[in-house]
Amino acid sequence: MSDRPRYDLAALRTRLDGIRLEDNPALVRQKSRDFYWYSPILKRQLDAVAADLVAYPASQDDVVRVLEACAELAIPVTPRGAGTGNYGQAMPLAGGVVLDLSGMDRVLDIAPGRVVAQAGALLADIDAATRATGQELRLSPSTYRTASIGGFIAGGSGGVGSIMWGGLRDLGNILGLTVVTMERQPRVLRLTGEEVGKVAHAYGTNGIITEVTMPLAPAYGWLEAIIGFDDFGRACSYANALGEQDALAKKLVSVVAAPVPQLYFLRHRPFLPDGKHVVLAMVDVLAADAFAAFTTRHGGEFLFRSDLVPAERRAGLPPIYELAWNHTTLRALRVDPAITYLQTLYPFPHQLDLVARLHARLGAEVPAHLEFVRFDGKVTCFGLPLVQFTTEERLEEIIAIHEEMGAVVFNPHRYTLEEGGMKQTDAVQLAFKREADPAGLLNPGKMIGWENPDFDLASGRLYLFQGLA
Amino acid sequence: MSDRPRYDLAALRTRLDGIRLEDNPALVRQKSRDFYWYSPILKRQLDAVAADLVAYPASQDDVVRVLEACAELAIPVTPRGAGTGNYGQAMPLAGGVVLDLSGMDRVLDIAPGRVVAQAGALLADIDAATRATGQELRLSPSTYRTASIGGFIAGGSGGVGSIMWGGLRDLGNILGLTVVTMERQPRVLRLTGEEVGKVAHAYGTNGIITEVTMPLAPAYGWLEAIIGFDDFGRACSYANALGEQDALAKKLVSVVAAPVPQLYFLRHRPFLPDGKHVVLAMVDVLAADAFAAFTTRHGGEFLFRSDLVPAERRAGLPPIYELAWNHTTLRALRVDPAITYLQTLYPFPHQLDLVARLHARLGAEVPAHLEFVRFDGKVTCFGLPLVQFTTEERLEEIIAIHEEMGAVVFNPHRYTLEEGGMKQTDAVQLAFKREADPAGLLNPGKMIGWENPDFDLASGRLYLFQGLA
Ligand SMILES: Cc1cc2nc3c(=O)[nH]c(=O)nc-3n(C[C@H](O)[C@H](O)[C@H](O)COP(=O)(O)OP(=O)(O)OC[C@H]3O[C@@H](n4cnc5c(N)ncnc54)[C@H](O)[C@@H]3O)c2cc1C
Ligand SMILES: Cc1cc2nc3c(=O)[nH]c(=O)nc-3n(C[C@H](O)[C@H](O)[C@H](O)COP(=O)(O)OP(=O)(O)OC[C@H]3O[C@@H](n4cnc5c(N)ncnc54)[C@H](O)[C@@H]3O)c2cc1C
Repeated sequence: MSDRPRYDLAALRTRLDGIRLEDNPALVRQKSRDFYWYSPILKRQLDAVAADLVAYPASQDDVVRVLEACAELAIPVTPRGAGTGNYGQAMPLAGGVVLDLSGMDRVLDIAPGRVVAQAGALLADIDAATRATGQELRLSPSTYRTASIGGFIAGGSGGVGSIMWGGLRDLGNILGLTVVTMERQPRVLRLTGEEVGKVAHAYGTNGIITEVTMPLAPAYGWLEAIIGFDDFGRACSYANALGEQDALAKKLVSVVAAPVPQLYFLRHRPFLPDGKHVVLAMVDVLAADAFAAFTTRHGGEFLFRSDLVPAERRAGLPPIYELAWNHTTLRALRVDPAITYLQTLYPFPHQLDLVARLHARLGAEVPAHLEFVRFDGKVTCFGLPLVQFTTEERLEEIIAIHEEMGAVVFNPHRYTLEEGGMKQTDAVQLAFKREADPAGLLNPGKMIGWENPDFDLASGRLYLFQGLA
Repeated sequence: MSDRPRYDLAALRTRLDGIRLEDNPALVRQKSRDFYWYSPILKRQLDAVAADLVAYPASQDDVVRVLEACAELAIPVTPRGAGTGNYGQAMPLAGGVVLDLSGMDRVLDIAPGRVVAQAGALLADIDAATRATGQELRLSPSTYRTASIGGFIAGGSGGVGSIMWGGLRDLGNILGLTVVTMERQPRVLRLTGEEVGKVAHAYGTNGIITEVTMPLAPAYGWLEAIIGFDDFGRACSYANALGEQDALAKKLVSVVAAPVPQLYFLRHRPFLPDGKHVVLAMVDVLAADAFAAFTTRHGGEFLFRSDLVPAERRAGLPPIYELAWNHTTLRALRVDPAITYLQTLYPFPHQLDLVARLHARLGAEVPAHLEFVRFDGKVTCFGLPLVQFTTEERLEEIIAIHEEMGAVVFNPHRYTLEEGGMKQTDAVQLAFKREADPAGLLNPGKMIGWENPDFDLASGRLYLFQGLA
């Protein structure tokens, strides 16, 4: 990455007159990184990555101007929302321009069932606007308060809400996208239906998203609960059964094995007796009695219920979703920097059995953390287990053990789409890339199917975002 | 039923002064029946059933007065909503009073996520009120336009909406009930959580529901679609997969085998080419492109789409849910009075295989009609197959074949809770009945567990509404 080509930045600056640019090296460096340091491997590989320049478009016209100029001058462009991705997705491997969309943050239109927003709008800001109509986004990452909607669509997969609505991969969770292509004469495309799959979770490698249309769900009053179990297996089967309660509207069902909650959920510590494995849940508060009845039936013990704990004891607590998804990892990392993590899927219908076997085999070194979701119409769970990091070799071994035993691993220690395992490139995807970014200037280095024509597109593995052919 | 006891109606009349009563025999007879004639067996058994008197309470106080007086005078009381039940549920086997709740039809309160209404309110009227807030009931029977919410809770099970929300059996689909007991001094009970299960689908045998609190869902614009297939199996697997699309908000996914649609869906006939097996669907219109993409992926052909068919061609068509659930049967009966039906469940995960085997074996005599639903967290289907009725013996044989092959039958040719197979009586249920109706005067003859103390409560069968012990 040190012998990267020199770009004609002077010409670029002239052409982009009127658009805010930043070339202060410290600031450029800062805008060239994300949460890649979650992975000790990516940290080693990507630490030196930096762009030459950051451009801050204020409108779609600005985006068109930047792409037009960069296409002409053969300068790579890497889009950036809020830079909260964990896999170096937003890091400009070949330098050039980081296109920071944070200035395009307007919520444009709200109607029953959907919202239209600019790509740089923060998820929490979108909800603040839609909540006036009793609605909110179906899905958000646990970085809800800091991440952008465009970055979520281009770099994320799902999270809070996936237990009701599945993931971003599912038809219907993204209603429409406006995308600008990287061509001498950039085009503005409007994608709906199947076509949004071309750009979803593509790390911005085949178009810059400027505007999004997202479906909305009812903004329930969400009861936050922590339910304790002495037995890990019972915590898992409770969580699975809660996920399967069709009539309880819910937004979060997570399992975190002891002693993770006790060691790392510092502000919730008073609610977390030693030894308890916990389930974190967000459930429609109107169904509180039904939820309590269900919990009693399953022998669960409420350690925390936001509707019952007095306000003064709740003050200072983070929202419960910030104990879940990748925030579990973040909280652990803050206490113990030697910790890293994995991302797994335990396929239905054997998820509970597989989790139990993995926990028995690796539980001490790889403490369990499960996120229950709807996946292809069934309730099952992803894992974001913590890993007590020792060496890269041991990490690869742990991954191999998971795969051998039947888990699918979406390797968070890889910066390419395909190796991360979430996005399958195929003929349709590559044909679209040839159209939308013929010179391969968008976020180069992230799509192996493009960089390496010999790459085996037809590998038998399970990708989260499947090919479109 | 002809040698039934004489009741002291004169004393009753005196005590109920000020409450509207009806004793015109023709009118009383009319209010003593429901859609029991759907079943040739129930038609034979129940044709002579009639009450002595119909009482029309205008308020909960009136209900209390009627129950108090009838408890005192040992006169049976059978509640009635709109009388659209199919199993003679609302028919007063021992005469006495029919308590017609249709006058208690007010929508009392609407808030985000829930509605409070009087028990006699019609489902469509509740929705007309809640829709102003962008909300509607989660579940309704296909008799949506004529049935009452109290009758639905006490006599129904689910229907339109069950593909998103499961059934009335599920914790959270009924938030609260106000119930008046049948005692010398009637009590007004407020049931929530687990307790609503005591009164749900109990045919009014253990309390009169006066007020209900029901959860609300977003009132999407519902696109109505009919999708055609040449192959029955492909129609079924399309419908199952559509049910499993987590991100497509939907309300109806039904399969009707040819030639049923062509023979009986008279007003939709122009849209139904000969030989096509059809899927009926209601899907959030905002996701129309995603839904179309899904349908293309699965080789489905749109025969009808309400968003594309011009208004003049749609005029005069019934809403699509009135082709589904028990309306399929009704439409067939109108053309061919010799038709009757069954109610079955094809348990997950073998539903498609079981449906295919039954269709192969009995398809001509018992044409398939499936309703896809969420059931215990999975997508599977109920069946409401039509039956070309010949004899009662043959009907029993057909039921036996279904059970042998692995289907669960909820026999719609029985008027008791347990034989119908939907409601399990158990110790908790009976204890509540002893409290709420110690003399057994509420809708007598419908709960075997009460009438016959030797009844085996612990039978191994699957009940839709399970016991509470
Ligand atoms: C603590 C923590 C918890 C997390 N939890 C979750 C979670 O629950 N679920 C989840 O899915 N993710 C999660 N993430 C990852 C990440 O936070 C989310 O995916 C987030 O939505 C990314 O948004 P962003 O604006 O920060 O995107 P960025 O990191 O800025 O960008 C993400 C990717 O999208 C591209 N991109 C950004 N904007 C555009 C655009 N307008 N057009 C085209 N491409 C664009 C970037 O180039 C990059 O490849 C978590 C991360 C952390 C650190
Ligand atoms: C064409 C057709 C289609 C149908 N489709 C469906 C369907 O999709 N799903 C479904 O579940 N059902 C269906 N049904 C059955 C029935 O229409 C519904 O269950 C309906 O909701 C019953 O409401 P109702 O007001 O007519 O009740 P009624 O028939 O009047 O009463 C039903 C039962 O509840 C009792 N009851 C009524 N009101 C009260 C009260 N206030 N307190 C206590 N007990 C009370 C009655 O005694 C009776 O036992 C269908 C019936 C027909 C004829």
